[in-house]
Amino acid sequence: MATRRDFLRGSSAAFLGAALVSKAGAASLPEAPLMESAATQQPYLPPNGRPYNPVATLNGWTAPWRMKNGWKEFHLIAEPVKREISPGMIANLWGYNGQSPGPTLECVEGDKVRIFVTNKLPEHTTIHWHGVLLPNGMDGVGGLNQPQIQPGKTFVYEFEMKKSGTFMYHPHADEMLQMAMGMMGFIVVHPKNPRFMPVDRDFVFLLNAYDVDPGSYTPKVSTMLDFNLWTWNSRAFPGIDPLVCRLDDRVRIRIGNLTMTNHPIHLHGVDFEVTGTDGGWVPKSARWPEVSIDIAVGQMRAIEFIANAPGDWAFHCHKAHHTMNAMGHNVPTMIGVDQRGIAKKINKLVPEYMVMGEKGMADMGEMEMPLPENTLPMMTGTGPYGAIEMGGMFTTVKVRKGLARDDYKDPGWYKAPPGTVASEYKA
Amino acid sequence: MATRRDFLRGSSAAFLGAALVSKAGAASLPEAPLMESAATQQPYLPPNGRPYNPVATLNGWTAPWRMKNGWKEFHLIAEPVKREISPGMIANLWGYNGQSPGPTLECVEGDKVRIFVTNKLPEHTTIHWHGVLLPNGMDGVGGLNQPQIQPGKTFVYEFEMKKSGTFMYHPHADEMLQMAMGMMGFIVVHPKNPRFMPVDRDFVFLLNAYDVDPGSYTPKVSTMLDFNLWTWNSRAFPGIDPLVCRLDDRVRIRIGNLTMTNHPIHLHGVDFEVTGTDGGWVPKSARWPEVSIDIAVGQMRAIEFIANAPGDWAFHCHKAHHTMNAMGHNVPTMIGVDQRGIAKKINKLVPEYMVMGEKGMADMGEMEMPLPENTLPMMTGTGPYGAIEMGGMFTTVKVRKGLARDDYKDPGWYKAPPGTVASEYKA
Amino acid sequence: MATRRDFLRGSSAAFLGAALVSKAGAASLPEAPLMESAATQQPYLPPNGRPYNPVATLNGWTAPWRMKNGWKEFHLIAEPVKREISPGMIANLWGYNGQSPGPTLECVEGDKVRIFVTNKLPEHTTIHWHGVLLPNGMDGVGGLNQPQIQPGKTFVYEFEMKKSGTFMYHPHADEMLQMAMGMMGFIVVHPKNPRFMPVDRDFVFLLNAYDVDPGSYTPKVSTMLDFNLWTWNSRAFPGIDPLVCRLDDRVRIRIGNLTMTNHPIHLHGVDFEVTGTDGGWVPKSARWPEVSIDIAVGQMRAIEFIANAPGDWAFHCHKAHHTMNAMGHNVPTMIGVDQRGIAKKINKLVPEYMVMGEKGMADMGEMEMPLPENTLPMMTGTGPYGAIEMGGMFTTVKVRKGLARDDYKDPGWYKAPPGTVASEYKA
Repeated sequence: MATRRDFLRGSSAAFLGAALVSKAGAASLPEAPLMESAATQQPYLPPNGRPYNPVATLNGWTAPWRMKNGWKEFHLIAEPVKREISPGMIANLWGYNGQSPGPTLECVEGDKVRIFVTNKLPEHTTIHWHGVLLPNGMDGVGGLNQPQIQPGKTFVYEFEMKKSGTFMYHPHADEMLQMAMGMMGFIVVHPKNPRFMPVDRDFVFLLNAYDVDPGSYTPKVSTMLDFNLWTWNSRAFPGIDPLVCRLDDRVRIRIGNLTMTNHPIHLHGVDFEVTGTDGGWVPKSARWPEVSIDIAVGQMRAIEFIANAPGDWAFHCHKAHHTMNAMGHNVPTMIGVDQRGIAKKINKLVPEYMVMGEKGMADMGEMEMPLPENTLPMMTGTGPYGAIEMGGMFTTVKVRKGLARDDYKDPGWYKAPPGTVASEYKA
Repeated sequence: MATRRDFLRGSSAAFLGAALVSKAGAASLPEAPLMESAATQQPYLPPNGRPYNPVATLNGWTAPWRMKNGWKEFHLIAEPVKREISPGMIANLWGYNGQSPGPTLECVEGDKVRIFVTNKLPEHTTIHWHGVLLPNGMDGVGGLNQPQIQPGKTFVYEFEMKKSGTFMYHPHADEMLQMAMGMMGFIVVHPKNPRFMPVDRDFVFLLNAYDVDPGSYTPKVSTMLDFNLWTWNSRAFPGIDPLVCRLDDRVRIRIGNLTMTNHPIHLHGVDFEVTGTDGGWVPKSARWPEVSIDIAVGQMRAIEFIANAPGDWAFHCHKAHHTMNAMGHNVPTMIGVDQRGIAKKINKLVPEYMVMGEKGMADMGEMEMPLPENTLPMMTGTGPYGAIEMGGMFTTVKVRKGLARDDYKDPGWYKAPPGTVASEYKA
Repeated sequence: MATRRDFLRGSSAAFLGAALVSKAGAASLPEAPLMESAATQQPYLPPNGRPYNPVATLNGWTAPWRMKNGWKEFHLIAEPVKREISPGMIANLWGYNGQSPGPTLECVEGDKVRIFVTNKLPEHTTIHWHGVLLPNGMDGVGGLNQPQIQPGKTFVYEFEMKKSGTFMYHPHADEMLQMAMGMMGFIVVHPKNPRFMPVDRDFVFLLNAYDVDPGSYTPKVSTMLDFNLWTWNSRAFPGIDPLVCRLDDRVRIRIGNLTMTNHPIHLHGVDFEVTGTDGGWVPKSARWPEVSIDIAVGQMRAIEFIANAPGDWAFHCHKAHHTMNAMGHNVPTMIGVDQRGIAKKINKLVPEYMVMGEKGMADMGEMEMPLPENTLPMMTGTGPYGAIEMGGMFTTVKVRKGLARDDYKDPGWYKAPPGTVASEYKA
């Protein structure tokens, strides 16, 4: 993490100084740190307050807080950000504290939290704390529960975290546009009792989607169905980090959906159960064994499994058009069409015209063809055996023998061990 | 309610006279009352038969019946109707007894029901009793279980309600078109034992969707995915009444989906459980805690919760394009585009051209701009703190201390108490 | 079934000879039988190995195997096929062993299976064994778990079936295209203990979808949302066989979804429970009573019920645009439009122009109008009472008293008894 000033200077991550979020009263506001990287940050070990085992936010980070008179104080800044969707593509999004999604907020059942929200967007905003039980005036629906937060203003939310669980935050103001621009984040409330449903690994991420025309940078905010970038925490494969586990770890993955459609998330190699929703923990008697779980819009699902099979296991949305990138959209069918005649004719007019698709589209996964600036190929990524031919909502769960017992405290624990680094899937 | 003749005269609601639904044998048919209002009607207290606690149909009503030799007799008339979608917009739909959806049919486990269906549409129809266990010949699939009901004809369905639960009725004849035109209704079968799963408030409504071009009145019936009016009981926000509860009431809301896509229905302020489906009651061991429940097409979900948090809680579909009205569709992205130059050029040609969207779209929730006749603004509604910026499948659950214990028998119980009337959200 | 050579000669089904799948080592490969018919084949009684009650694949078949040194050996050939979607329409698909979907693979918990996959497609492929717990190198994701299987090559998969359940197979190579072309199949692993969750009838089928322009034969492989052929095992109504049961049979239907969207599958006449997923069997405490079950992409659901109500019960996807065929797409709304004037004008230019839709679209279910070559009418099928007005994902469950106790061993058991033959629904 970096302070806002560090960030502007391009310096490395550090907690130095404080972000001045408004001219009046800035001295009393907690720091609003900025994140400048789209890489998965090490879990944030709580420096004070009730103890807990932190989560790892996939291609994201946890917001630090300050304790003040028994309140845990966070500071979110709603602002335009530049997010690297995958190496080779940047999008102009709206987010919080330098990235989209915003930082994960972690606290503990019973914590009293105070969240300062400063609006640096060109229009008003609010934050709704999806799933959190709180007083009506803190619920964040602009016009209904509170006045809108005007540009340049800071609004303070205060409530007690009554129960443990997994929740989300997002605006409830000009909602379709602000969520289409990437404004969202995760909230994890750890149980007071650290022996309640313990796991060895605890990952969190949000499903989101954008419609960015090839060659452009800003999402089209009125798209309703036909998005061309299907992302996890605003990242597309091969830009999504792998989820690395020790053999026989008990693993939890918490996934929230803030797109416009259902995503059936499929994990290879193991069976799993849904153990929690944004409404609470699922009793054992009610759980189903699954390999694909459908997550509806505005739902969170926590899945759990024992990582008892070593290797690299595919983990993806099962809708095939959600595991490809923008360039795969609007490709005509050429199967069985002998294009030699057509190509000959076209070549007279357009000498560089390329015949493709007659025998299927797999060649797109391997070939080098010129792409428009700032876009991602339809099918990409390389594994140990060649082109993986995927994009979008795809990554791997890597189950390894070689990790140490206390490695979740190790900054590098979420990274693949030597020889299996994330970059092996890079384009 | 009004008789057909009253309705034509525009008189107020009353049960006087009988609707003559066919020339032959009309004397023996039960009355077919008409509803002329799109407002939530008071729950219908059973005048005879087994006792039960009635439901409240959101922006709808319950059909009265007559008892004849131990049979509960209803009379539905399939016919073109004019439905007010929200103040300022009327749609030409097809429905039953004057409205779309048709009246809720309420009866009790063990009741023998006889339902006369008179077809006043220009084409044939049938009714399928979705979820009800009945003899094959009563199942209502035209061509398969029965001949079609031709225009001008009346068909009689007879069956026993074998079990309590929540079901739906709709045509199984020219099905896509007739449902796209609004032909549907709710069936509630109360348990014989009034102590079985009692609640203090029991609301019902159907999810439906229309595609009505701005400025026109009739839905496009071949639309499959991209509807522009997402409605609850053929009403869009701010036309949907609030659901009003006493503090600490046990509340049930039964929701059926007869659109073309899933709707993740999200309630703020409380956790809830699904306690029933159109297949029956869900055992306690199988229930999940939820704040958003995905309701698939052709499914009914009954949710229950304790209304233990006072205030106005947002209640809506979580797909952001389902909480906006028609004018939000096909709006281009202008974020970050400095339109001053463009506007200047356009203004030379079109002097009244308005620059919008450069800083987001929230200004659409507040500004007054000329709309085409008979349409609804994209984002609308006003709350205690200003513009709510919503549309479509959105309303509020109002939890109040001030309601009396037996107020479900009071015609006004479903309305907001003084100072919090529904009209505070009106456009 | 027919050998490849028989098939080419057009002879009748028989197991004679062996398909030579590659020049080298062909003698050691197991036979790769071909299926030439799109009709439901009789359940395959296991000739050797552990005993089990076989499933019936709707409009499909089970692959025979050979036992070799304790291994059950199958041979799948990935290849272009011609599939009859319904009488009157053929599609150029890709499939396995002559049809799409490929044959169902049946085995028993604890079986060691060896599956030879020969690629006769114009591009590389792989097979992923969706839901099966197996070694990482057998998981079938091209590039990640194995090299691609090049055209002309055979790859051998070997693993033990660790648990009973229902799984699917499909490529994980150029995935969107290969699945859009129809490459998929079912896997049923029967429990070792034949008394575990026994049923009298056990049906299996896959949900799939194609986008074939009227008058053409090859699916458009880049379609993402707006398919025009919604099929069960690559068949559309009235081409889907009925599911025939004895009165009071316990019936299981296992349904897998490999389309691009959710399908809420609705059965009339009974309530049912989901008893299994592709992750395992659902405990009794966790089951919900249902009449419509939403099956997400990449999910399998096994439903069970007692067929205690005689008659013909509709069984279909509840999304109304999934129960119509291609010709219903893009029909304009004419309701309430008096077309006589328009028609008169058009008739001057196009004498055969037909007025339709003014009174609804039901007349389309009955009228004879010229269709483009190789397509299916929007609404079709005829039942005992006339036109059924359906298409796509629709068939019937026929519950009959007249079937013998051991009739699942009878080649004709899955067919309707005299007087209720499938052809009564044929176009």
